Amino acid sequence: MNPVKTRVAIVGSTGYGGVELIRFLHQHPEVEITSVISASSSGKPMSAQFPHLIGVMDMELDGVDAAKTAQKADIVFLATPSGVSSKLVPQYLEAGLKVIDLSGDYRIKDSSTYEEWYKHDAPDAASLEEAVYGLCELKGNDVQGKRLISNPGCYPTATLLGLLPGVEAGWLATDSIIIDAKSGVSGAGRGTSLTSHYAEMNENFKAYKVNKHQHIPEIEQVLGAAAGKPVTVTFTTHLVPMTRGIMSTMYGSTAGNHSEEEWIELYREYYRDRPFVRIRKQGQWPSTKEVAGSNYCDIGFALDARTGRITIIAVIDNLVKGAAGQAIQNMNRMMGWAEHTGLNMLPVYP
Amino acid sequence: MNPVKTRVAIVGSTGYGGVELIRFLHQHPEVEITSVISASSSGKPMSAQFPHLIGVMDMELDGVDAAKTAQKADIVFLATPSGVSSKLVPQYLEAGLKVIDLSGDYRIKDSSTYEEWYKHDAPDAASLEEAVYGLCELKGNDVQGKRLISNPGCYPTATLLGLLPGVEAGWLATDSIIIDAKSGVSGAGRGTSLTSHYAEMNENFKAYKVNKHQHIPEIEQVLGAAAGKPVTVTFTTHLVPMTRGIMSTMYGSTAGNHSEEEWIELYREYYRDRPFVRIRKQGQWPSTKEVAGSNYCDIGFALDARTGRITIIAVIDNLVKGAAGQAIQNMNRMMGWAEHTGLNMLPVYP
Amino acid sequence: MNPVKTRVAIVGSTGYGGVELIRFLHQHPEVEITSVISASSSGKPMSAQFPHLIGVMDMELDGVDAAKTAQKADIVFLATPSGVSSKLVPQYLEAGLKVIDLSGDYRIKDSSTYEEWYKHDAPDAASLEEAVYGLCELKGNDVQGKRLISNPGCYPTATLLGLLPGVEAGWLATDSIIIDAKSGVSGAGRGTSLTSHYAEMNENFKAYKVNKHQHIPEIEQVLGAAAGKPVTVTFTTHLVPMTRGIMSTMYGSTAGNHSEEEWIELYREYYRDRPFVRIRKQGQWPSTKEVAGSNYCDIGFALDARTGRITIIAVIDNLVKGAAGQAIQNMNRMMGWAEHTGLNMLPVYP
Amino acid sequence: MNPVKTRVAIVGSTGYGGVELIRFLHQHPEVEITSVISASSSGKPMSAQFPHLIGVMDMELDGVDAAKTAQKADIVFLATPSGVSSKLVPQYLEAGLKVIDLSGDYRIKDSSTYEEWYKHDAPDAASLEEAVYGLCELKGNDVQGKRLISNPGCYPTATLLGLLPGVEAGWLATDSIIIDAKSGVSGAGRGTSLTSHYAEMNENFKAYKVNKHQHIPEIEQVLGAAAGKPVTVTFTTHLVPMTRGIMSTMYGSTAGNHSEEEWIELYREYYRDRPFVRIRKQGQWPSTKEVAGSNYCDIGFALDARTGRITIIAVIDNLVKGAAGQAIQNMNRMMGWAEHTGLNMLPVYP
Repeated sequence: MNPVKTRVAIVGSTGYGGVELIRFLHQHPEVEITSVISASSSGKPMSAQFPHLIGVMDMELDGVDAAKTAQKADIVFLATPSGVSSKLVPQYLEAGLKVIDLSGDYRIKDSSTYEEWYKHDAPDAASLEEAVYGLCELKGNDVQGKRLISNPGCYPTATLLGLLPGVEAGWLATDSIIIDAKSGVSGAGRGTSLTSHYAEMNENFKAYKVNKHQHIPEIEQVLGAAAGKPVTVTFTTHLVPMTRGIMSTMYGSTAGNHSEEEWIELYREYYRDRPFVRIRKQGQWPSTKEVAGSNYCDIGFALDARTGRITIIAVIDNLVKGAAGQAIQNMNRMMGWAEHTGLNMLPVYP
Repeated sequence: MNPVKTRVAIVGSTGYGGVELIRFLHQHPEVEITSVISASSSGKPMSAQFPHLIGVMDMELDGVDAAKTAQKADIVFLATPSGVSSKLVPQYLEAGLKVIDLSGDYRIKDSSTYEEWYKHDAPDAASLEEAVYGLCELKGNDVQGKRLISNPGCYPTATLLGLLPGVEAGWLATDSIIIDAKSGVSGAGRGTSLTSHYAEMNENFKAYKVNKHQHIPEIEQVLGAAAGKPVTVTFTTHLVPMTRGIMSTMYGSTAGNHSEEEWIELYREYYRDRPFVRIRKQGQWPSTKEVAGSNYCDIGFALDARTGRITIIAVIDNLVKGAAGQAIQNMNRMMGWAEHTGLNMLPVYP
Repeated sequence: MNPVKTRVAIVGSTGYGGVELIRFLHQHPEVEITSVISASSSGKPMSAQFPHLIGVMDMELDGVDAAKTAQKADIVFLATPSGVSSKLVPQYLEAGLKVIDLSGDYRIKDSSTYEEWYKHDAPDAASLEEAVYGLCELKGNDVQGKRLISNPGCYPTATLLGLLPGVEAGWLATDSIIIDAKSGVSGAGRGTSLTSHYAEMNENFKAYKVNKHQHIPEIEQVLGAAAGKPVTVTFTTHLVPMTRGIMSTMYGSTAGNHSEEEWIELYREYYRDRPFVRIRKQGQWPSTKEVAGSNYCDIGFALDARTGRITIIAVIDNLVKGAAGQAIQNMNRMMGWAEHTGLNMLPVYP
Repeated sequence: MNPVKTRVAIVGSTGYGGVELIRFLHQHPEVEITSVISASSSGKPMSAQFPHLIGVMDMELDGVDAAKTAQKADIVFLATPSGVSSKLVPQYLEAGLKVIDLSGDYRIKDSSTYEEWYKHDAPDAASLEEAVYGLCELKGNDVQGKRLISNPGCYPTATLLGLLPGVEAGWLATDSIIIDAKSGVSGAGRGTSLTSHYAEMNENFKAYKVNKHQHIPEIEQVLGAAAGKPVTVTFTTHLVPMTRGIMSTMYGSTAGNHSEEEWIELYREYYRDRPFVRIRKQGQWPSTKEVAGSNYCDIGFALDARTGRITIIAVIDNLVKGAAGQAIQNMNRMMGWAEHTGLNMLPVYP
């Protein structure tokens, strides 16, 4: 164990991504939270925004000031919206901080694609070039010693972990991929809107941004690299009346003639020794509650001889493996610590 | 209005389908409920099983006895499980009653297919032959004057209403159809099980019976007839942490080169003058709460030029249009009454 | 049945009270909705605000204009916030309309009490004088032929129906009354706030406005009149993670030595022939779902010999008996129609 | 840190109390789980009962056998029902194990009172005599070195932590105490029943066991000891449509004339240096989500000058501070470890 703890700061501490970072970092043995930062609430105590932190994190929120943060911290997490992160990242990098960005800003390598889907300006070329896409279980993904990590999106994390081994192995027809994704409401953030109004969303199930979600190019970029050719997917997002959890139900035509057992073995092999991906046995599909509050991604399969298609089901907690947990996993790997450090909490069940 | 009301009986009154029949039939202007029947609870007052009916329906539950029911009623609804209905239907028919069966027993015309998916014996050939499949909005579906109507399944209702116009028009490649369906927990019935335990299902989203659901052959039978050739679908069912509602999200490759507006117009035309199907305008997708408690099926579209696929989203209340409401709609049509009689309640929102 | 329907208008149609009025009035046999009014959304179709009304109520929202409304309507419902209603009521009265106001503005007869609890100006004295408090089951409450009815609050409705018979009979020590009330989130309205954010309220239970709720003086005013002396109560409000429903759990020391059976009989007698109050039998307490979507108020009792206290439990649907349903019940009584006209829908269960 | 870990066994591992013990003990630095025990499922892997434990706790469930458990473990937790624990405790004690019992069997010191409320036989006198009631924050409560700890009930924990300082100080009239308690559904356990059926309980709020709950004598016993005279309370329990959480809303007439600030200071003083009780500041009341997943009990106050009553609101997670968390806290104190060892997880919010 490190006798001197690494100092971390969190920008966007008053959002759900920020507060979930605090939940894990607060008990991470290698780090100490030295600054919680909020553009809108600086000067107020953190626990005034989130009373569950009373007595635990009463420190005042700092404002956004890269130079001051650099005096207090070694690593900064940006739990800020897309379009905001790209403004802040160059400042924090220049101030000498290591940066882990949870927004979508640095995930898309092609700036025109970014601008088409995100509807605002892409980040500057230099920091975009430097950013490493941090899907931790992606083969060959190496972030150790990097300065800027772009943390994957919530939907792409569940979806890519579910599709990558099959695509890389060539067992999936890449022009056949359809992704039906479902998310809990916390994915929409803490800002108020009619969509996240309790009485509107409770006892309701709805689709949104059908074929238009900004996570589509992220998924296609990574799958295309794995396939060695462009991949285009059909992608639907739905809101589920629950707070946490994503399920991605994925469909594809199989190439080759592999059994369900072989598919399971392919995935077990791909994720061998990776602590946070669990491949379910035949006939068992994961549910979102089975990973809630934890950094796990669980994956199950159903191969249909009648149609020649495989159904792949992956679940994560959108705020953990889909955001804060994976960001900390990325920090661990960046710093050369054991990947699961501070992330060994079990799912909260029931 | 009919001065003498038609008398109706309900078998399986203590399940969710039965009690939902009571909610609508209780205020149906043409009928009077004269017997509520339960094999397991006969002799007890109905309101002892369902306290929300205290003062409204305190009558005692009758046992299963076709001859006695025939003295009290003209029409009998069977809200009984698959495998039970096929035992009862011949008795009620022989006793001279008109029968509307809500189980799966009479939906599958091919007995070996039935037995493969339902895992028990098919109904006798004579009553199976006589049964009319009662998907009310199916073109050419005529139930007036019939004696035995087989009410469609909940998933098939949402799914077929969403797919039929496209398949019939030849605008959908029938070998490309993938159905990702989601249901509230009431679909599993009032029986207790770990699956329907509150603490297991709340804040949870799960897949079940992937590619194995007994509603698959029902969907394929109707689509096959519409297409004029066998159709095989990929079909996944999920449980949503809510009580009521089904969404069927359907995917298919388009044949021909029709615009989203043309798709919408195709469906508007197909369902012209049908009171319970509402086609949404471009860019608007229905959510389950928008039909909750009502007999509506709402349908929306998203055509994706990038992939050549269309996404069709249909929602119903599984207990209404997916069960009791459609059964009453079938009764209305069977009896020659206006189709919406007793079914004009608006969705309960929020 | 009336061959010419009475014309009704609804101000505040885009809130939950307004839209619930539409659900019931739409199928009320004596009336026709001729105008839906919204200060903020006039000119837009009603169904754009509430897609569940597509094809049912596509009419455009009118602006607030008493003279124009008077040309279209005979009765106007005000589903507007406290402080707004008192501005509008005089205009609508002067324009010749009958008015049923769902806000708190006309419930408190003492203006200084109103201003102390509501924190803004009381209504003008003339209209306050004219307003009749419309708790339908209150003994002696007579609204027939009145011009202005003040519809009771949601918490007071459940609470007063639970306490009035006991207080009037002198069986409850009026200085001992403690009311622990719980409400679904729809009671907070459709406006967005952190309190009604799904992720904040789901899987949460919270107290608010403890001893400060503006419904306290309304309860005390009515109980005081029934007791013939001032009554002061302890009153706590809580939010339940559900959309609809209020339970009021009430505690009081008993005066006299009456058995539980006698309490039940006292209440049965008080509410004899009133269609919407159901007194439960001994040992059975109502739950909110057992009245959901309906105009019922169900009441149960537990007498505790150990402490000499009685616990009275009353439940309503806050949007129905606690708002729109009772308002329509008031309209029926005002117009001399049968009290339950248009309100005979059963609870939606489950 | 201990180089050799203490070995713990859990009886009743397949219930919610058992699995929550596993969640915390799995990462407790001083212990190792060496046996998970279930009378009904022995021989099956633990993760077959709870798939969220796949890859984490795949060990087989042992049967109930005190001698075998004694070879594997030093401490045994009994997460077994009342009536079962009293049969097992003597066996485990005799086999030389330290025992922490989560049932109600050893909480009531008077056997006839136990039998009156629990409706079955009281434990044998010797082990009842030996059992120490483990409400950790109770003044003078000393469990270090004890062999048998009786872990408090969920409702009593929230209620007693909320009432004890006031009662002990003589600031509450002990004949005036009314407790209105609310619990999430997990409190009813994993067994299936209509009460815990999702469709029955979702969007529902209900009272149960009014004045009859077996936690009443436990509360009265502890309050009576603190007051130095018998105390009788009015106690109502309700089910909330959520999985976890208890709120106890408590009412009492004040004795003396203390301000709200003085009440807050009284409680802060009582719980000074106790890591898991947080006293809220004036005007702020805790909600259940603010302690979810954690071992905290948060308490807030509202003093009402109008009625001379104080309202005290206490919240806990019923499965943590109300069961598994407090049991581990008791183990820590029994073993002389720091009280918060292994319990420092923050609330899971949102």
